[in-house]
Amino acid sequence: MCELLGMNCNVPTDICFSFKGFTERGGHTGTHEDGWGIAFYENKGCRIFLDTLAASISPVAALLQNFPIKSLNVIAHLRKANIGGITLENNQPFSRELWGMNWIFAHNGDLPEFKPTLQGRFLPVGDTDSELIFCFILEELWRRFPEGHPQPESLYPVLKELSINLHSYGIFNFLFSNGESLFAHCSTKLHYIIRKSPFKTAHLKDKDLSVDFSKVTTPNDRVAVIATQPLTDNEKWTAFATNELLLFHEGEIISC
Amino acid sequence: MCELLGMNCNVPTDICFSFKGFTERGGHTGTHEDGWGIAFYENKGCRIFLDTLAASISPVAALLQNFPIKSLNVIAHLRKANIGGITLENNQPFSRELWGMNWIFAHNGDLPEFKPTLQGRFLPVGDTDSELIFCFILEELWRRFPEGHPQPESLYPVLKELSINLHSYGIFNFLFSNGESLFAHCSTKLHYIIRKSPFKTAHLKDKDLSVDFSKVTTPNDRVAVIATQPLTDNEKWTAFATNELLLFHEGEIISC
Repeated sequence: MCELLGMNCNVPTDICFSFKGFTERGGHTGTHEDGWGIAFYENKGCRIFLDTLAASISPVAALLQNFPIKSLNVIAHLRKANIGGITLENNQPFSRELWGMNWIFAHNGDLPEFKPTLQGRFLPVGDTDSELIFCFILEELWRRFPEGHPQPESLYPVLKELSINLHSYGIFNFLFSNGESLFAHCSTKLHYIIRKSPFKTAHLKDKDLSVDFSKVTTPNDRVAVIATQPLTDNEKWTAFATNELLLFHEGEIISC
Repeated sequence: MCELLGMNCNVPTDICFSFKGFTERGGHTGTHEDGWGIAFYENKGCRIFLDTLAASISPVAALLQNFPIKSLNVIAHLRKANIGGITLENNQPFSRELWGMNWIFAHNGDLPEFKPTLQGRFLPVGDTDSELIFCFILEELWRRFPEGHPQPESLYPVLKELSINLHSYGIFNFLFSNGESLFAHCSTKLHYIIRKSPFKTAHLKDKDLSVDFSKVTTPNDRVAVIATQPLTDNEKWTAFATNELLLFHEGEIISC
């Protein structure tokens, strides 16, 4: 199994603190050591850092822990390979362009029996079930919205239907974004927290490190963090229900 | 105008030496300081590092100068913005998936009068003429090869025809790859060198740095480096002719 980390905010925010705890799970406090990746949206652009090294020993991950990239939407992934070899093309998050937007996807779980026939609009580069599912979802969106990019509220019921269908094939926790909002679906395990004023001090679970968010925020900031397992040990995280799909926009849940 | 750097080899090779000279041109020895990017193929996977900072001061570029990623095909770009703002989505190289492969493109020049009507299979995320051209080329390939991925030799005449057509609209130097081979087209300025046994010492033009390639290679290695301007001052680089399209495969020119 893999680990997921997502962030959705109302002001561009860096994810350094959460990422420092998260990367520990990639070979140190956790066994998800078969590569990692992180995607940062900046305006319509998106930069993705990928590595087949364990996150806890990766020089690129070490740089990013202290390189504050400010973003409204971030998706990160630690890989524990089960389907597909340990090669770069199997690393997540995956990305594709649809309707002139970058779409990013990361998956935790496996659906070995899901074998859709794709039409070719989106095809996997690697050989994971996760990339196949991502291509299937994008093909469905492309087919169902021929007029182009729908509003997130119109996407929600389609993703909900697809998630329920895919959940019947296996384990399907995922994060999905186009840079404007972030969808998070729980099949077996996913948690979230929304940090807003009054901000407090948070302490990581996987590393002895604290941050006083009141010193690095303004009263209007709102930051949602989503993770497979809570990243801090002194805050209240909320567990997703089974088959729950949440749509985060500007640090709030707007569809559920 | 921008600067291009490409590498095509017969054994996975790092580009650290060339990249050290190249990044100097991004704000130090050159004025191409409106961002940079580099794409490394590793098997079928591809990782792209992008930054809106000048390459000469970018922490990510500094890391990559000393982080030897071994690759058969690399494409890098320094941006001097003329069409499109200085935002991440306008940074090159651009990437898209077609036929289950990652395709990478970087362009030096401008074609302000080229306004194709795209069908939507590939759409620009940003607002540069370069990304529009990339989407146009991929759409043409997708339309002309409905059976799927052709051999590089079949791609060559199509890219040659498209290059001649696009060259009539303005300046169109480009590098283009699917990770198996690398196409390089010269409209106004492009140079290449093929390093092979017996390897010698090379000295950068933009930085007082030398490397003795005989100490870091085997006799069978063959490495083609393509750059807007020669990167070394003690080697013989070959200038492309106007409108010349070269196809590099395993460090050799196989179509011209």
